[in-house]
Amino acid sequence: MRQITGILSFDTPGPGLHPITPRLSEWVAARCAETGLLTLLCQHTSASLTVQENADPDVRLDLDDAFAGLAPQGGPERYRHHLEGPDDMAAHIRTVLSGVHLSIPVAGGRLVLGAWQGVYLWEHRTGPHRRRIALHLLAE
Amino acid sequence: MRQITGILSFDTPGPGLHPITPRLSEWVAARCAETGLLTLLCQHTSASLTVQENADPDVRLDLDDAFAGLAPQGGPERYRHHLEGPDDMAAHIRTVLSGVHLSIPVAGGRLVLGAWQGVYLWEHRTGPHRRRIALHLLAE
Amino acid sequence: MRQITGILSFDTPGPGLHPITPRLSEWVAARCAETGLLTLLCQHTSASLTVQENADPDVRLDLDDAFAGLAPQGGPERYRHHLEGPDDMAAHIRTVLSGVHLSIPVAGGRLVLGAWQGVYLWEHRTGPHRRRIALHLLAE
Repeated sequence: MRQITGILSFDTPGPGLHPITPRLSEWVAARCAETGLLTLLCQHTSASLTVQENADPDVRLDLDDAFAGLAPQGGPERYRHHLEGPDDMAAHIRTVLSGVHLSIPVAGGRLVLGAWQGVYLWEHRTGPHRRRIALHLLAE
Repeated sequence: MRQITGILSFDTPGPGLHPITPRLSEWVAARCAETGLLTLLCQHTSASLTVQENADPDVRLDLDDAFAGLAPQGGPERYRHHLEGPDDMAAHIRTVLSGVHLSIPVAGGRLVLGAWQGVYLWEHRTGPHRRRIALHLLAE
Repeated sequence: MRQITGILSFDTPGPGLHPITPRLSEWVAARCAETGLLTLLCQHTSASLTVQENADPDVRLDLDDAFAGLAPQGGPERYRHHLEGPDDMAAHIRTVLSGVHLSIPVAGGRLVLGAWQGVYLWEHRTGPHRRRIALHLLAE
């Protein structure tokens, strides 16, 4: 049994849920893990990680809209922390609600996601950003 | 130290938080884990996992109501993704808000939950469903 | 490779996000973990764990306000579970929304948090409480 750590960088084109399952699967496969546990930590406070439906892309658009309703953008009338723009504090709240870490078992050399599940990096800021995800793999 | 993976299936009778601590504890005990880490991944996008109060069942009813308010059911007037019924997109949002994975330390042969904590599989669809939870146990 | 489990107790002075990164880092350093995975479980149902911005403290105040809006306090007119005070059921909802567990990779002897990330114990009750966090460290 061994541990492997690493960092993957992703350039998000802007807001929304961006699929990262292929790059994660590739990273795990390259490390020849037959059985294991993959842990991900998004190293940011305005982008998050979530597992959601990989079929109808409308689900991702509706999720983004729902989160815009739960954590509205706003300036000084709404938030103390507003100097980084009206989307910033909203992005912090959205990140807390969706979470920055995930743990996914590995069995038979594959991430054991459900048939309709994909892993997404969720950009909550309005502009493109470079986002880093720290990885830990327990493997044998 | 060793790793054990597996799948547990649960038939949810309908919406709400269904206790799964007893089956998890039994699964861990059967694997003779004295010290370890149990990781759970619900392999669905409209059912989630959460740790909540195991005493007053009203807490679970209030949680379900609160989530109905945060993510209302709706048809095409509210969601792009509405063909699977008015409860489906709401269930996706609720699943993101509550999460699909948990990691629980094991010490002295037991899950180290707090005295008032139980683990729940939360069905967010209105009908009964068979739900699968992938398990990973690091144990010695 | 070895596993270490433990408990850390924190006295929260009242509501809000209380920084715990220093005590976690110290706990990991004292166990001489060069590479590993730290898992935390808050053993309560009305206090949570989150990773958020460690720079501007206004972010934490805004987060607390946002959560007060998402899960309002209330008595019997709002919640079935109200006997422990108007803040209790709201605290349960807030705890579900923000989560009770975290997993953080360790590399080079340090928690691999992002530059702007801190770990917070979030007290959701209005009074001070003693809170226990169960720890699991996989280390070598």
